This record gives sequence, structure tokens and C-alpha cells, in this order.
Amino acid sequence: MELDKKKIAYISLAVILVIIFIFVISDGCAPDRPEMVQVIEIPDDAYGPEEWAKVYPLEYESWKKTKEPRPAGKSFYKKGWDTDRVIYDKLSEYPFMALLFNGWGFGIEYNEPRGHWYMRIDQDEIDPSRVGAGGVCLNCKTPYMDDLAEKHGKEFLHMEWEKAIAKIPEEHRDLGSTCYDCHSNEDMSLRTNRKVFTEGLECIGRKEFTRQEMRMLVCAQCHVTYNIQKDANMKSVGIEHPWVGSSWGDISIENIIAYIKDKKNIKEWTQNVTGFKLAYIRHPELEFFTRQSEHFNAGVACADCHMPYKVVGGSKISDHNLMSPLKDDLHACSKCHPQSKDRLREQVKAIQDRTVSLLLRAGYQTAVTAKIFEQVHKNETQGVKISSSLYNRAKDFYQEAFYRVVFIGAENSIGFHNPTEAGRILGDAVNFAARAEALLRQGLAVKNINVPENQPLDLSKYLNNRGVRGLDFKPEQEFEDPFGLQNIFVPRFKMGL
Amino acid sequence: MELDKKKIAYISLAVILVIIFIFVISDGCAPDRPEMVQVIEIPDDAYGPEEWAKVYPLEYESWKKTKEPRPAGKSFYKKGWDTDRVIYDKLSEYPFMALLFNGWGFGIEYNEPRGHWYMRIDQDEIDPSRVGAGGVCLNCKTPYMDDLAEKHGKEFLHMEWEKAIAKIPEEHRDLGSTCYDCHSNEDMSLRTNRKVFTEGLECIGRKEFTRQEMRMLVCAQCHVTYNIQKDANMKSVGIEHPWVGSSWGDISIENIIAYIKDKKNIKEWTQNVTGFKLAYIRHPELEFFTRQSEHFNAGVACADCHMPYKVVGGSKISDHNLMSPLKDDLHACSKCHPQSKDRLREQVKAIQDRTVSLLLRAGYQTAVTAKIFEQVHKNETQGVKISSSLYNRAKDFYQEAFYRVVFIGAENSIGFHNPTEAGRILGDAVNFAARAEALLRQGLAVKNINVPENQPLDLSKYLNNRGVRGLDFKPEQEFEDPFGLQNIFVPRFKMGL
Repeated sequence: MELDKKKIAYISLAVILVIIFIFVISDGCAPDRPEMVQVIEIPDDAYGPEEWAKVYPLEYESWKKTKEPRPAGKSFYKKGWDTDRVIYDKLSEYPFMALLFNGWGFGIEYNEPRGHWYMRIDQDEIDPSRVGAGGVCLNCKTPYMDDLAEKHGKEFLHMEWEKAIAKIPEEHRDLGSTCYDCHSNEDMSLRTNRKVFTEGLECIGRKEFTRQEMRMLVCAQCHVTYNIQKDANMKSVGIEHPWVGSSWGDISIENIIAYIKDKKNIKEWTQNVTGFKLAYIRHPELEFFTRQSEHFNAGVACADCHMPYKVVGGSKISDHNLMSPLKDDLHACSKCHPQSKDRLREQVKAIQDRTVSLLLRAGYQTAVTAKIFEQVHKNETQGVKISSSLYNRAKDFYQEAFYRVVFIGAENSIGFHNPTEAGRILGDAVNFAARAEALLRQGLAVKNINVPENQPLDLSKYLNNRGVRGLDFKPEQEFEDPFGLQNIFVPRFKMGL
Repeated sequence: MELDKKKIAYISLAVILVIIFIFVISDGCAPDRPEMVQVIEIPDDAYGPEEWAKVYPLEYESWKKTKEPRPAGKSFYKKGWDTDRVIYDKLSEYPFMALLFNGWGFGIEYNEPRGHWYMRIDQDEIDPSRVGAGGVCLNCKTPYMDDLAEKHGKEFLHMEWEKAIAKIPEEHRDLGSTCYDCHSNEDMSLRTNRKVFTEGLECIGRKEFTRQEMRMLVCAQCHVTYNIQKDANMKSVGIEHPWVGSSWGDISIENIIAYIKDKKNIKEWTQNVTGFKLAYIRHPELEFFTRQSEHFNAGVACADCHMPYKVVGGSKISDHNLMSPLKDDLHACSKCHPQSKDRLREQVKAIQDRTVSLLLRAGYQTAVTAKIFEQVHKNETQGVKISSSLYNRAKDFYQEAFYRVVFIGAENSIGFHNPTEAGRILGDAVNFAARAEALLRQGLAVKNINVPENQPLDLSKYLNNRGVRGLDFKPEQEFEDPFGLQNIFVPRFKMGL
């Protein structure tokens, strides 16, 4: 019995050792398992990424990659910041924009942007006219914005650019949006950091949001349109989103235009060719995407496609190296769409080709009408005035067209975020602009003033020698109509290129 | 031992009986297993379904169901042949069509069709103007067509309608397309039965097809556009598809229009309002769907959505009860799209709403331009002629617009078969039509002829008291612009409804 007990003890020990050995071996071969992140407290005022990076080094590393250019040739129509190192000039891509935006910064220099890393830096390098509005231009560019506006009051909004920039702590002066803008430092949950945006959402009746909605809103605090409020001296005194009358899932172009067309204190600039004081529409990604697009209705958020989950080492992270899925080899798409990537890419191209074709149609039609307005106004100075009924209706139609063209031109997906809505908006733009042309032609003809059958556009006048650096048209960057029809509407030789 | 042997024999017998019993029982409870169909020879000349029905009773039963109306209210914009028993009148749904098609049958009676069962019968019940072209109207309506055309020569094509009908064997006179049109009687493989269609495919360079392509082509032998060739006396002498210059996957609206605009012998009618001799475009489902639509590029064929596989008894059959998937509760869609049917239905509606809005825009813009042409021509008879340069360009643009409107209006999916292509085509239609208006307004104004700011359309003139039965406008059937903008372009009080 004594011996048996000993035997059992030895065998037990051996078995235990073998089990431990197997456990150790097997664990050594297994991939790194996800680990709980170490909890270090992030202070409330950590505007820069430094403190956050200590706790979330992988997300930080991926965010830093927005500094690097993307492989060239992957996106068909958004070629900004690729390894070809070419700065793509939207005014050369779409020459009608040079005519339509002539009168302020957007008509001088309007580039396809670089990565998120450069969002603030780009402001220093672009033509100074683009930051002429003053401190208000920092709204989407620095996590300090709301604090600065609170500290310095309305004064800050129209503060001269250099002075406004100097108010940002020096070490963070070049910093674009950071961890602080989208995350709570306490529990890493999503939050937004723009008072104006919160007010905008309240205006459409929303205060509480699901996590999936927040995965849109953190992006949308910048990727929305906004208007700058001006005082009588054209000083910037506020910002607002033109969402009156809209609701979540239905912020319509119709409502936006109705609002900005009416409201006087948001007419930020004067269009040279027509002399009209106008408002403007900026990158309306949220508005466009959430208006009954397939992907929105399927419950997809911005982050699903632009920040897909990736495995880094043993950790699964949300990729903070934001970009178009096209440039990321459709990594995000393939999570839901098992089709071949070539086919998906072709499908994106089919959608974007159709959108570009219609954008050219609507853009040039609006430009033609603008040039006829120029003629109407010139004649007016010489005492020949056309019927005010025709004129007023044409002016109204012209604005309806103009804002639609700006909307789709500024939206960053070339129609992809909501393909059929893009077609609808541009089709209406064409109708408004062409009807305006019809009324003006009639009005001038009645006064014996002949508008040539093909109205010349004098585009080189608007495209060359722009701004302090004398920027010129880059013909190799121009997008041609993928369907080859544009020339019928505006013959090449009348474009003045 | 003697006893043991007996025992074993009894036990063996009992076991065998039990096994047989279990086998019988279990088989009795199992579902019917698919069985090889019994091979009965189907004769080569089995034009009617009778012989085929003996071998394929389930397919035949499902085909016969096209006789029954569908539950009402399931389709948003294609409400034909529902249990509400209302005959939906396309000219009331889209009043601009009554103006544009005035001058021949389509402007008199143009109904949303009933099921396939009625394809031939409907011809007897509609206004006789719709079969004025003669025997040629049977091309898609009877499996005897090619035989009749061969037997009676070109004569058959312009044979008076009643005489042509009488050439079909009496027992099959009411029969639409049948088994014979799509299947080989030898091995049930897919085939087509229209010489004109085969020639059309050869014209785009295709002779051999995969089975999946055949699952489109059997439908497409009718669901395509075609033109009727006329001799100098406007007698029908042939049929053709306007596909010159196109290729498989790229039969474009641009190529179709270039062809039919030029070719003289396919101008089938004269548009009353403008006096123009015009061609026409019919239900271009194949052309529209195969031009880089999402579903086409995904490898989907017509039969996948309109003839989904269903289990009947123990057999899996391709459902021959053809209909819109909307009316079939999205049965076919759910095989690839696991989303909730409510969401899918909403997505279809979003696409169709946008298409209808643009179709109204393009249709009314074309109608406005047509009415201004009427004025131009009226003035011409009074000796006032506008600039021929303006006139010719406007006429060309007008036709480009008109054919695009007809194309999308005749295509049976309200944009769904290729959503972004629908937007592109309609956007171009708007541009062509509105530019034509601009040139005409100018031309008339130069001659001191005033076109009212809102051109009246006199629609009730075209909509009421149509044809032998004096059909009237049915206001309750009119589709309103889902986005509420149409009234801005053509104010209601100027429509003359």
C-alpha cells in the first residue's frame, strides 16, 4: 500500500507535468490573443494624440499613416494625394467650376485634398484667399476650435487668419482632427466636439444617438455642409448648418436650397460672372448619404467603409488610416460583397462615369446660363433692360441649378454614396439651368440682342493666372465626358480653353 | 439442433418482415422524391402547350396562372392586371405621353398590360389603331409568326389585321408565346423562335450563348425594342432591331437614336403636335438591363428574378407564372438579399420615385418644346420663318430628347433594371429638350412672336375622347412628382387638364 501510494503520487506528478508541458507548448504556438488594454488615465485636456497614443498605440500608428500618399491610379475620379505626387486641381478637372466660382477663393485654388494628417497644414499652403474668412476657417481643422471660440468670443470667428492660428498652442498648431474630436477620454466611447454641429442636429430634432449612428456623426462633424454668417461689413460672425425643415434621413437638397437662397446673412461671396451675391455648399457627405441611399438604409455607417476592422498583430482595430475603399483595394467592400474585386470596381466606375457625365452636363449648362446673364447685365448698363418677369424667374432657376451643381461637385463620392439621388439632383439642375437660358434668350431677342447659338465660355480667362501663384489650367487633368456627348451641348471650340 | 434451425428461420423471417415494414412505413412518411420525368415524344410542330403539358404538367400549371390577376397594391408604378380589376391607362398616368404620342395608336390607348396569358387577346380588345400596322403586329404574339411570314412572304407583314389573324390555326388563335417559343421539343434546352431577333443578335456579333445568357434571350425575343420597316406607301415590309454599332453589354441609347434618327424607312408615324415623321422605341428591357447594370454585371438573368425556382410537391421547377418580383412578395430577391423585405421594397421605391420624378421632368420638358414647335410651324404657314440654323438644331435636339423619354417610359421597370443609367438618360433628355426650347424661344422672339413664359400644354385636348371608344383622362391614375418640384417647371394651371 505504501508503495502504491508513492506510485500514484509519482504518476499524478508526471501527468500534471505533461499537462503543463502540453499547455505551455500549445500556448506558445497559438497566435497572440487579444489582450485587455492597460488602463492609463488620459487627461481631460489631451487635445493632441500623445497621451492617447500610449494607451492605443495601434490606432495611433494607423492614424499616422494618413500622412503617407496612396498608391496611384486606384481611384477613377478622386486622385488626390497619391504616390504620383501630382496635386490635382479641381478647376482643371471640371473647367466650368473656374467660371462659376470666379469671385472668391474656390475659384482661385481648389485642390483634391491630401490625407487627414494635412487637413490643417493644407490651409497654409493653399492660396491665402481660401482662408480669407478668418478664424472661422479653423472650425473643422483643430480640436481647439470650440474652446477658442468660447475664450475669444465672436471676435475669434472673424479674426485675421495669422492671428487666429497663433491662438492655437504652438505644439499643436499643425494638428488636424485628433482622438479628442471623436472619443471620450474616459471610456473611449464616441463623441463629437463641435457646438455648431450639435446645434445642427438639434435643429433636425435629434439629441440621442445609437453607436452605429455615432459612427457616422464623428465623421459628419466635418463632412457636412455649413454656411458662414456675415455681418453688414462681411465679417464672419457665426456658422450654421442649413437644415431647417429637414429631418434625420431626409436632409434634402430642396430644403437646403430653399433655406440658403432666402437667408441674407449667409451670402458669403459675389459671383463675378453674374454679379449675384450667393451662399455656398460644402462637402455634404452626411446629407447626401443619409437621404435613402442603399448603404444608409442597409445600416452601414461611414466607419464601416472608411475605417474597416483590421487585424494588427493579435489585435483587431478600427483602421484609423482613413481613405476611399477604392484606394484600399476594396478591403471594406469585400466584407459584405463576396463578388470579385474587379467586378466591384467596375460597378463603382459605372456609377461614377454616369455621375461625371451628368455633372458635366449640369455644370456647363449652368455656366452657359451664367454667361448669358453676364450679357443681360452688360446690356442693362447700356440701358437695355429685359422683361423683369423673365429675368426674375431665370435668376431663381439659375440659383436652383447652381447650388445643385455645387452640391454634387463638392460631395466627395462622385455619386457613389447615393447613386440615384445624384442623378435626380443633377437632372433637376440641368432643367433649371436650361430653362433659365431659354427665358434669357427670349428676353434678349425681344430687345434685338442676339445670343450666339453656342454661347462662348471664355474659360481660359477664369482658368489661367489664378491667385498669388498665378495658377494655370492643367489640360491633362480635365475629365472628359465618359459618354462622349458633352461636345454636342457645348462645342469644344466655344469653351475658350 | 432441428429446433434451433427452425427457431433461426422464424427469427430471420420476423426480422426481414420488420425491416420491410419499417422500410414501407418510413417511405410512406417521407416527402415525394423528385422523379425522372416520363419521356413522351413532343412532336416538332407542337405550337400549342397541349403536348408539352403532358410531360411538364407543373410548369404548364404555373404558366396558366398568368391568366389570374395579381394581388393589388404591391407594385408602386406598374399596376396592371391586379385584383382591383382597374385597367391602368399609361396616358393618364403620364399625361405628357398623350401629347407626345398623339398621331397614332400609342396616343389613343396605351394600357399597362395584363399577364402573359393575354398577350394576344389584349390585341383584340385594345383600340384597333394599335394593330393598324397589320400582320407585323403578331411578331411577338404568336409562336406561328416565323412560319406564317415564311409561308405568306412579305405580304403577311402588311396583311390587314383580321386577315392576318385568320391565318393562325383557329384553336391557337388566342395563344400568346408558348413552350415552343423558348424550348427545344427534343431536350427541353432553351432556344429562341424569332428570325428577326436572331438577325439582331448577329448584328451585334453574337451567335453562341451560354445557358445563363439564354435565360435572358428567351425573354428578350419579345422584351427588346424594334422598328417596323415601311415602304413608300407606309405598308409594313419588315422588322429590325436598331442595334447597328452596338455590342453585347453595350447596346446604348446613343447608338439606337443615331440609327433610328437617320434611317428613313422606319419612320412609322407622324407626331401631330410637331408634324415630324418619327420612329419609335418599344420596351427595351434587354438593351437597358444589359448596359452595365448591377444585376447584369452580377451575372443575373431575367429568369432568376421573374421565374425563380420554386418547390411544387416534390419537384423544383422554374416558375412560369411570370410577374414583377414586387407582386410576388420579393420571393426571388430574397434568394440573394437576406435583408428584410420591407427594406428591399423601400429601396425599390426610392429608385423608382427618383426615376418617375426625372421622367416627369424630361417628359414635360419635351412636351413644352413640342408645343413651341407647333407655334413655330403655325407661324411658318403665315409666312414667318425662324432662323433655319436655330430650327434645325432645335429639331435635332428635340428628337434626341423625345426618343430618350420614350425609351425610359416604355422600359418596364421604372428605372429598376439599371437605376443610374435611367438617371443619366433622363438627365440628357432634359438637357436636349430644354436647349431646343431655348433656341426656339429666341428664334420666335427675333420675329416678334411672344412665347408665354409658361407654355400652355392643352393636355385635355389630347387626353379626352380618344379612339373608337372615346377614352377619357382618368385623373385618379396620374402619377405625381414624388419630390413635388414638377409644378415649378410646368405650373399645374398651364397643363390644361
